[in-house]
Amino acid sequence: MLRFERELITEWRRLDLPAEAAIVLLAVSGGADSMSLLIAADELKKAKKLDLRLVAAHFNHGLRGEESDADEAFVREICSERKIELAVGHARSKPTSNVEQAARIERYEFLTRTAENLKASIVLTAHTIDDQAETFLLNLIRGSGLDGLSGMRPARNLSNGDDNLKLVRPLLRWAHRAHTEAYCHEIGIDFRSDTMNEDESFTRVRVRKILLPLLRDFNPKIVERLAETARLLCHEIGPAQEVAAEALKLADLKELSEPELGKLLRSWLAVNRGNRRQIELKHIDALRRLINSRKSGKTVELPGGSNVVKHAGQLVFKKNNIEKEPPDN
Amino acid sequence: MLRFERELITEWRRLDLPAEAAIVLLAVSGGADSMSLLIAADELKKAKKLDLRLVAAHFNHGLRGEESDADEAFVREICSERKIELAVGHARSKPTSNVEQAARIERYEFLTRTAENLKASIVLTAHTIDDQAETFLLNLIRGSGLDGLSGMRPARNLSNGDDNLKLVRPLLRWAHRAHTEAYCHEIGIDFRSDTMNEDESFTRVRVRKILLPLLRDFNPKIVERLAETARLLCHEIGPAQEVAAEALKLADLKELSEPELGKLLRSWLAVNRGNRRQIELKHIDALRRLINSRKSGKTVELPGGSNVVKHAGQLVFKKNNIEKEPPDN
Repeated sequence: MLRFERELITEWRRLDLPAEAAIVLLAVSGGADSMSLLIAADELKKAKKLDLRLVAAHFNHGLRGEESDADEAFVREICSERKIELAVGHARSKPTSNVEQAARIERYEFLTRTAENLKASIVLTAHTIDDQAETFLLNLIRGSGLDGLSGMRPARNLSNGDDNLKLVRPLLRWAHRAHTEAYCHEIGIDFRSDTMNEDESFTRVRVRKILLPLLRDFNPKIVERLAETARLLCHEIGPAQEVAAEALKLADLKELSEPELGKLLRSWLAVNRGNRRQIELKHIDALRRLINSRKSGKTVELPGGSNVVKHAGQLVFKKNNIEKEPPDN
Repeated sequence: MLRFERELITEWRRLDLPAEAAIVLLAVSGGADSMSLLIAADELKKAKKLDLRLVAAHFNHGLRGEESDADEAFVREICSERKIELAVGHARSKPTSNVEQAARIERYEFLTRTAENLKASIVLTAHTIDDQAETFLLNLIRGSGLDGLSGMRPARNLSNGDDNLKLVRPLLRWAHRAHTEAYCHEIGIDFRSDTMNEDESFTRVRVRKILLPLLRDFNPKIVERLAETARLLCHEIGPAQEVAAEALKLADLKELSEPELGKLLRSWLAVNRGNRRQIELKHIDALRRLINSRKSGKTVELPGGSNVVKHAGQLVFKKNNIEKEPPDN
């Protein structure tokens, strides 16, 4: 067994993932991260370390024309050569705004639908510790508050409240992008490079190509340090507290200390919206101002179209029915 | 009144500092930050916004030879011109190792002693929001855990447990270094520049001169965002929990979840050491390993000379009596 495969099976056990009799869907873009995860999992099957039904899932967003189709063809070819089952999905229409986020939502809808059809219990994605560090820095720069800094979790429910389908990231805690590329070279598997990953008009690309190398001059282990800080925050903040989803009485809120109020508001939004994504400091601060303002009928708009209204001595959450939050960072 | 003075008096009130009948000691190095605070406070006295006994305190570390003496002469001259009381202290001997930290300890001892002699109730330092952001980044890079990231507080007790002498940083939440320099120019007061602030062999200087300008390209408000994140963490983590200072039973510790154990250990160390400074992830991780190791009699060394020993089914804290932690970042 190669080292990358040994590390993967070790993490597989640490995450308490089933070694047999399970159906596992694996999201594959064709890049080094997902190809390494796919091939290593397949090698572990061949080595009898895993005895699972492993299905690759590729979603063709069609955003990069011929390049997207070549990615699909590449994934089809590898899966066919190695006799790995493959499900392929295609975007129905091109998003016109917020392209990256819209694409992510569509991709996760495809993964969820496909997993449900296959009766899979686990969806794997190939996010690495580098992705975690980049996400941390992006949220730090943006000022997303502590929730944003707590990063991706190695395992969580894919849909809210559904315990039967897990999203698991078995590379998140240990694998660097350099490891996934080295493993692909070592085992003689090609991978695709997304030209968007080179486009420095994307903030994430500049974080990866400019900011992280500079930080590495300060501390060669910076990626591990940032991922560890995210993990600590995740532990410290914990999941959203249970708070009543109904309206909050202003009189009660005014009794709270500043930090207590912030915590309560974040939890209340999380429960009402189904998640905390995209809730930034400015939204919490806007709610604080709303609470202290003298006028009734005022509104704070939240990302995704929902909003909070001050009415009759209460804060009332109003959900926008078409709101769909990306399940991922 | 100039804008800098207006902002200072506003913050003075927000911090609930006395406007009259108090004795306030102000640490002055001669740099732009402390000169701006000294002069603005003196101007507020002249404008009858403050009616306090204001005493400047300068400590000559003697680390930079003639430059140090010129700093002292400069502070003496300004205070004499403006009829501001001044206390000057001199280092007794040059530290041979860990110079920066040793100098800070000596300076704070001088400030505490002088404040006690004068019966002052407040010691002011001129740390700015830029200092806060730099400290945050330094600790993030080093991997100091969440305590280190929670940064400096605008007001706290100068000595542990002594409520009668506060250390207050009235520039910390709003003033940028550029503001302090601009105010000095505006009011026609010179200031000294520490050559150490230009020496890129210091990590802090590289954070200031290389890392922060790059981060500002990502977000022009990065300093405010980092300071705000530190403030949120400070609220979220809060002061050290009350935990018994005596030995911890291993059997009890093994009942705890990973995050609970981490929290408890950090609080326990804080209570026993008097503070959490310099406690990094690696120390908590070492204690976790100590708890799970099979051998008795093993020791984990902590910064400052104290240590934790595993003995007779317990973790025992052993204080080094010569341990002295810097009260500041």
